Amino acid sequence: MPIHTNPSPVFTSVVVLAGGVGAARFLRGLALVHDPGETTALVNTGDDTVLHGLNISPDVDTVIYTLGGAIDLERGWGLSNETWRAMESLKKYVNVRPAGSVAAPEWFNLGDKDLATHFYRTARRSEGASASEITNEIARAWGLAQQIVPMTDCDVATLLELAENCEAGVAGQQISFQEYFVKHRHCVAVRAVHFQGAEFAKPNCLNELRQAEVVIIAPSNPIVSIGPIRALAGIDSALTAQRDRVVAISPIVGGHALKGPASRMLTELGHESSALGVARLYAPIASTLIIDTVDADLADAIERQGMRCVVTNTVMSTPIIAGELARIALTSITGESR
Amino acid sequence: MPIHTNPSPVFTSVVVLAGGVGAARFLRGLALVHDPGETTALVNTGDDTVLHGLNISPDVDTVIYTLGGAIDLERGWGLSNETWRAMESLKKYVNVRPAGSVAAPEWFNLGDKDLATHFYRTARRSEGASASEITNEIARAWGLAQQIVPMTDCDVATLLELAENCEAGVAGQQISFQEYFVKHRHCVAVRAVHFQGAEFAKPNCLNELRQAEVVIIAPSNPIVSIGPIRALAGIDSALTAQRDRVVAISPIVGGHALKGPASRMLTELGHESSALGVARLYAPIASTLIIDTVDADLADAIERQGMRCVVTNTVMSTPIIAGELARIALTSITGESR
Repeated sequence: MPIHTNPSPVFTSVVVLAGGVGAARFLRGLALVHDPGETTALVNTGDDTVLHGLNISPDVDTVIYTLGGAIDLERGWGLSNETWRAMESLKKYVNVRPAGSVAAPEWFNLGDKDLATHFYRTARRSEGASASEITNEIARAWGLAQQIVPMTDCDVATLLELAENCEAGVAGQQISFQEYFVKHRHCVAVRAVHFQGAEFAKPNCLNELRQAEVVIIAPSNPIVSIGPIRALAGIDSALTAQRDRVVAISPIVGGHALKGPASRMLTELGHESSALGVARLYAPIASTLIIDTVDADLADAIERQGMRCVVTNTVMSTPIIAGELARIALTSITGESR
Repeated sequence: MPIHTNPSPVFTSVVVLAGGVGAARFLRGLALVHDPGETTALVNTGDDTVLHGLNISPDVDTVIYTLGGAIDLERGWGLSNETWRAMESLKKYVNVRPAGSVAAPEWFNLGDKDLATHFYRTARRSEGASASEITNEIARAWGLAQQIVPMTDCDVATLLELAENCEAGVAGQQISFQEYFVKHRHCVAVRAVHFQGAEFAKPNCLNELRQAEVVIIAPSNPIVSIGPIRALAGIDSALTAQRDRVVAISPIVGGHALKGPASRMLTELGHESSALGVARLYAPIASTLIIDTVDADLADAIERQGMRCVVTNTVMSTPIIAGELARIALTSITGESR
């Protein structure tokens, strides 16, 4: 029988609230500095949709493909070395589609290899498997040790309410996230965001969240990536109750989002597009906010919101930088290495 | 105003009862000798299934792709110059599929370009479009002038009842056509064929069939390709009532099917695997049977079944031969050119 001379390693259970690209890059960094087996990503599914008859879960796939080392880094979604034969062939059907039909949506692409994931998800859904079962199976297929968990197994749809008449519809009309984000390239003004079905949707991992030693809100869009998770019953109150163990990372750097519509959306919805605006959104649920060095002058104002402010490089241009950011996020709560 | 010196062309409305490969080749030949605008193909949909979450209609697609000049001739199904990236990628998920799940069926392939047709069909089905609307749209996308019509807009499933315990299941168990045909390569013994839902399914084109000047039963499997069409209420009685205008082409040549399980199946179900066995099946509904020259010695026995027997080359190795076969089929009823 071996003699243990070293103390048992300290396992810290970490739950990360995650959207798409920013969260995926953060999780890839986290895997460099923390045991993936002790990491749970609770992923936004408000963007989920059905197109081409397929169940599509964009943020879940972005997280899994990134952690599996297969993401197309330049595009930010889908697989590298991808081909587009199915989608190119679909163009043939656009002209025979009758008025009113939304079949053959030429604005939504899925690569040929990426389709396999959608076939598997859709076939499993039709067999009655839950989103969390399916996501777990897909994550295992990609060899991940992290727990990748959709925020809920229920249908929740993020809807954007148009602020004015535009190419997407008339003022007041609600459009799906994929229509907003992909079809209209997030270039139309919105005046409200709704999370249809959230009030009746049971969140996943609520116990894991309550028992987590560290909760990290990834640098994702606070409105449409973290917002849907927070809209689920019990999530915000759990975070509030353990606020001292929750650290958020601002997705706004120098007043702008690195990717996507967060900046525009914050402004349109009456918030400030800055790390301070993010602090105001997260102050009730997080004790600590990590902001980028370019925003160092906002640190005092953020601390006046009742949050501890940590200033570092948050632009995850390499996995090493993402790993350092993750290390700082962890130690900002555990106090180790400080 | 031009002066017409020629008599108006005689338009002959032709309805072809069609299965997959044999019917598709026959229809391609028919297009060389008869106005495609006066041709209706009523196509078997008993093989239809849902796999990968997609609505699959194999015989309809084989007919459309063949007439569209895009079929893979060697394979007999799907598109030429095809790639298989989606299906290859699906292998990743086979090992994570839980027991009892049939997701990621590695035995059923769909090419990347072919997937587009399935996306369109599935999306349109989810919008509530009927099989005949969708088939018509797909046929128009491929530029076809023929009317391509699924035999019914209702769900009818061809089920094969296993004759003995085998790799496909236990004796008496009913398996789907695709399981029989593709998964088990039609190498398991069957003792009965059922057309689930046929008794309640309204056939398409019953009026066109009744008014057709010529009805041609294509050289398709009499049991599982023509059988499902005949099982629909009203089809057999319509054919019987106009028997003198119905001509069938034997798919059995020299005692064997050129492709598929027709020969084995005829024997297993108590019929004779010969042009004479085909004659006995079709005698109540067709006045004429076209058989291959290698079977000329069966002509007398076939005529004793009460059918007129026409002997010619029925092996459609080229479109020209198929065209000649189609011309002979037409004139065997209309009497022209004879």
